[in-house]
Amino acid sequence: MKEQYESGRGAAQPVTFYAIGMVENEINELVAPDLIRATKSRIVLDTAYVDALLGLEAGQEILVIFHFHRSVGFDLRQHPRRDHNRPLRGVFALRSPQRPNPIGVTKATLVTVDGNVLTVNNLDAVNGTPVLDIKPA
Amino acid sequence: MKEQYESGRGAAQPVTFYAIGMVENEINELVAPDLIRATKSRIVLDTAYVDALLGLEAGQEILVIFHFHRSVGFDLRQHPRRDHNRPLRGVFALRSPQRPNPIGVTKATLVTVDGNVLTVNNLDAVNGTPVLDIKPA
Repeated sequence: MKEQYESGRGAAQPVTFYAIGMVENEINELVAPDLIRATKSRIVLDTAYVDALLGLEAGQEILVIFHFHRSVGFDLRQHPRRDHNRPLRGVFALRSPQRPNPIGVTKATLVTVDGNVLTVNNLDAVNGTPVLDIKPA
Repeated sequence: MKEQYESGRGAAQPVTFYAIGMVENEINELVAPDLIRATKSRIVLDTAYVDALLGLEAGQEILVIFHFHRSVGFDLRQHPRRDHNRPLRGVFALRSPQRPNPIGVTKATLVTVDGNVLTVNNLDAVNGTPVLDIKPA
């Protein structure tokens, strides 16, 4: 495998995941992350996962791992927040949604857990975003 | 979509990613995360991504998102670190590798960047782990 990577011919190992739930909030447009964070969001899990929430407590920080499902394509180097006044940076030095694997990781604050629904603050994912994982932060 | 999740009949949205590189270190067995973290690791990226590293600097913290490729299956509730003296917790309240989507997210310290190779401390991924993304922490 090492040779494959070092050759630069591409590392074609596919990994497939399935959404465990989705984000619901009022944000249906791709606006600045700060604006999304200021909105309360709900993470509606598949009800099959209710038992997997045992031990999560209101007020704690959680990592929400999600799919930037509306992101299309990427450049290896990008201007931060598409601001051409800021110098280009590599995508791995940015949190841009336009990346080789469009995975988002955000630290959010858990407000309540009610059955299969988590209410959170500080999440920067738009309405309808597929959630892949939740971990304690 | 909302109905689908609330019904509990399963959210069958597949999302496929491709490894951007892989972890190399001396750890070939699934040992405790603390032991892996104590070992220096190299992240060998596909050379196609060298330009995506611009702006990452030695000493900074990065998030490494990876596939727990040796994880098989999961329980919704688990004893932390398989210690039966500790009470069961939901998998979303744990960082166990055995989870619905076996995604790992670890904050590591970047020691050096040399071409397509990142040397890092504090990464808890075994040798051969596929890396999916790197972000500033």
